[in-house]
Amino acid sequence: MKKHNFSAGPSILPGEVFAEAAEAVRDFNGSGLSILEISHRSEAFSEVLDEAHQLVRDLLNLPEGYQPLFLTGGASTQFFMVPMNLLLSGEKAAYVDTGAWASKSLKEARRFGQIDVVASSKDDGYTFIPKDYTLGSGYRYLHITSNNTIYGTQYRAWPEVDVPLVVDMSSDIFSRPLGDVSRFGLIYAGAQKNMGPAGTTLVIVREDLLRHALGELPTMLDYRTHIAKKSAFNTPPVFPIYVSMLTLRWVKEQGGVEAMERRNLAKARLLYEEIDRNALFRGTARREDRSLMNVPFVLERPELEQDFLAFCEEAGCVGLKGHRSVGGFRASIYNAMPIESVKFLVELMQEFERRFS
Amino acid sequence: MKKHNFSAGPSILPGEVFAEAAEAVRDFNGSGLSILEISHRSEAFSEVLDEAHQLVRDLLNLPEGYQPLFLTGGASTQFFMVPMNLLLSGEKAAYVDTGAWASKSLKEARRFGQIDVVASSKDDGYTFIPKDYTLGSGYRYLHITSNNTIYGTQYRAWPEVDVPLVVDMSSDIFSRPLGDVSRFGLIYAGAQKNMGPAGTTLVIVREDLLRHALGELPTMLDYRTHIAKKSAFNTPPVFPIYVSMLTLRWVKEQGGVEAMERRNLAKARLLYEEIDRNALFRGTARREDRSLMNVPFVLERPELEQDFLAFCEEAGCVGLKGHRSVGGFRASIYNAMPIESVKFLVELMQEFERRFS
Repeated sequence: MKKHNFSAGPSILPGEVFAEAAEAVRDFNGSGLSILEISHRSEAFSEVLDEAHQLVRDLLNLPEGYQPLFLTGGASTQFFMVPMNLLLSGEKAAYVDTGAWASKSLKEARRFGQIDVVASSKDDGYTFIPKDYTLGSGYRYLHITSNNTIYGTQYRAWPEVDVPLVVDMSSDIFSRPLGDVSRFGLIYAGAQKNMGPAGTTLVIVREDLLRHALGELPTMLDYRTHIAKKSAFNTPPVFPIYVSMLTLRWVKEQGGVEAMERRNLAKARLLYEEIDRNALFRGTARREDRSLMNVPFVLERPELEQDFLAFCEEAGCVGLKGHRSVGGFRASIYNAMPIESVKFLVELMQEFERRFS
Repeated sequence: MKKHNFSAGPSILPGEVFAEAAEAVRDFNGSGLSILEISHRSEAFSEVLDEAHQLVRDLLNLPEGYQPLFLTGGASTQFFMVPMNLLLSGEKAAYVDTGAWASKSLKEARRFGQIDVVASSKDDGYTFIPKDYTLGSGYRYLHITSNNTIYGTQYRAWPEVDVPLVVDMSSDIFSRPLGDVSRFGLIYAGAQKNMGPAGTTLVIVREDLLRHALGELPTMLDYRTHIAKKSAFNTPPVFPIYVSMLTLRWVKEQGGVEAMERRNLAKARLLYEEIDRNALFRGTARREDRSLMNVPFVLERPELEQDFLAFCEEAGCVGLKGHRSVGGFRASIYNAMPIESVKFLVELMQEFERRFS
C-alpha cells in the first residue's frame, strides 16, 4: 500500500532522491564504490560538498559575506554555538519565545551573556507569534524560531528591527524565499525536514559578526574553523550531506524556493479549508500565524481521536499523531509532500465526517 | 572492474552492509517508507538504536557502569568534550603524543585544565609508541590514541597506570578484544573506519567519572544528557547509526572482535612480510609498534612512486596514497577488508618488483 508520510521530522523527501541515494549506497556514480566508503577528501565528494554549498547560495540568494556550512549536532548544538560565537563577554541578545525549541535555545544562550525575552506567547499555549514589542538598545541580535513545529505557528513576515536576526529555520528552510538576506545575521536548520535526512545541520553565518580572538573557542565550536575549511575541517557526515545536496538539486529543478512556496501555500490552503469547514475538526493555532509546514488540529469530540488515527493509518497515512506535549493531530506537509497526499487526507477527513457526524 | 578499497577512512565496509543499507533507503523492512524519512521516535528506529547500543555492550564486553553513546561531531569534538566533562577546575590530565590526532586532542584539552605531555615520539617522526615513562601523581586520566592512522603505529598492550585510560580508538575499535574494560575511563571513536559510515561518533563512558554540577555544561555537551536519553536527546543521525548497527551485527555474525583480530593479524602479517621481503619497499613504523589497521610504506627508489601508484590504480586498488603530511603509501586494511584484497596487493608488489628490480 502506498504510504503518505505526514511525519514532523525526519520526514518525507522526494521519491527521486530516495532512488538516487539508494543507488549511490550500492555504487556511487559508477565508481565501483559505495558513497559510504569514499574518502571525504576524494574529488568525487569534494564536488558534492561544493555543489551543496553552491545550491544553498543560489536557492537562498546569499550575498557576499554569508557563508553556508554543513555541520552536525542539530539545532540543539546551535542553541549554544550561536551565543558562544556571537556574544562577547558582557554583551546581550534578545529572544522571542514561541515554543519548546525557542525556549530551549534561550535557556542555553543564558550561559554566554544577558538574554532578554522580549516577547512570548507561552501564556497562551504558544498559539500565536507575538508581534507587538519594541526592542530596547544594545542587543547584538534578535533570535526567533521561524516555524514552530509543535504548535504550528510561523512567521509570515520578519520582525522589523535594527539588529541582525538570528533565525532557527529548522522546519521551514527552503520552503519559501527569504527576501532581503541582509536582515539576517545567522540562520540555522537541522536538515531533517525540508533539506535532507537527519545527520547534518546547515548554518549560514554573516562572517563579520564573528569577533572572538582566534583560538579563544574550542576549534570545532568556532564557525571560522568550518568557514576556512569549507565544512571539511574534520570528516563531515558524507551521506547526510550527499542526500541534502540531492534534495536541494530537486528544489532547484522544481523551480526553486519560489515554486516551493506556491505549492506549500496551495497544500496548506486545502488542508486548513477542510479543517475550518469540517465540523469535526478544529485548528489550534491563531489563523494569521498558521504554519504552511505543520498543521495541528484536534477533534471537537476527543473520544473520536483514536478512531480517526486508526482510520488514517489503515488508509496509509502515517505520522499524524500530535506531539506528546500537545496531543491531537499534526499533518506535516513539507516541500516533498505531494498535493495528492494532502487531497487524500482531506478526503479521509470528509469520509470520517460522513461516518461520525 | 572490482575495486579494492584501501582508503584510510571513510573506508570499506562489508558488502552485505552496503546491500542492506541501500535497500533500507528504498524501503525499510517492508514498511513502505525509506529509513531516511522515518521518525527517530518511531518504534522501528528505537529498535535500531537499542540494538546498536546492545551490540556495543556485547562485542566489547562492557561491565555495568559503562554507557555507550552514539553522538556526532567526530573525534575532533571529543577532543574538547572529554576534558570538559572529566576535569573539574584546577585538575590535570596526562597525554601521550603519538601523532597528529593525539597532538590535536591535547591542544584542545589545554582549555580545560593542566595538560602534561608525559611521553612523545614527535622527535622521531611519530614512528613508534613511547613506553618508557612514569606517571606522576594527581592525574585524573591518561589519554592515548590507540592506533595512529597516519603513521601506522598501534598500541599492542595498554599502558599499566593507576589512572583511568581515555582512549581515542577511532581507527581500531572493534578490531580486537579490549581485555579488561575496567582500565578504561572513556573510549571514543569516529564511526568511519571499522564501525560504519561518517556521521556518528561512539563514546563509551564510565558514568562515575562525570562530576560536574548538573546544568554547568551546555546541555548537548554534557554526556549525562545523552546517557539519560539513550543517544536520542535530540534527533540523532539516523542513517549513520543504522549502518553502524548493521556493521556491528556483521562483526558479531563473523565471530565477534576475537575473529576480527585473527583475520586482521593474518592480513597484516601477509602485507608486512611482503614489505620486508621485497627490496623495492620499506615500512616506516618501528616493527614492534606496527599497526594492524594502517600499513604505511615507501619505495626505496622514490622516483618510482608515481609508477607504483598508477600501476595499483589500474589494477583497481584505490586509496593507497599516503597522508599528505608523510607521503609514500598507506594500505588501510580494516575489519571489512577481505584477505583476498591483501593477497592481490601483495601480488601487485611482486609484479612491480619483477618489472623494476
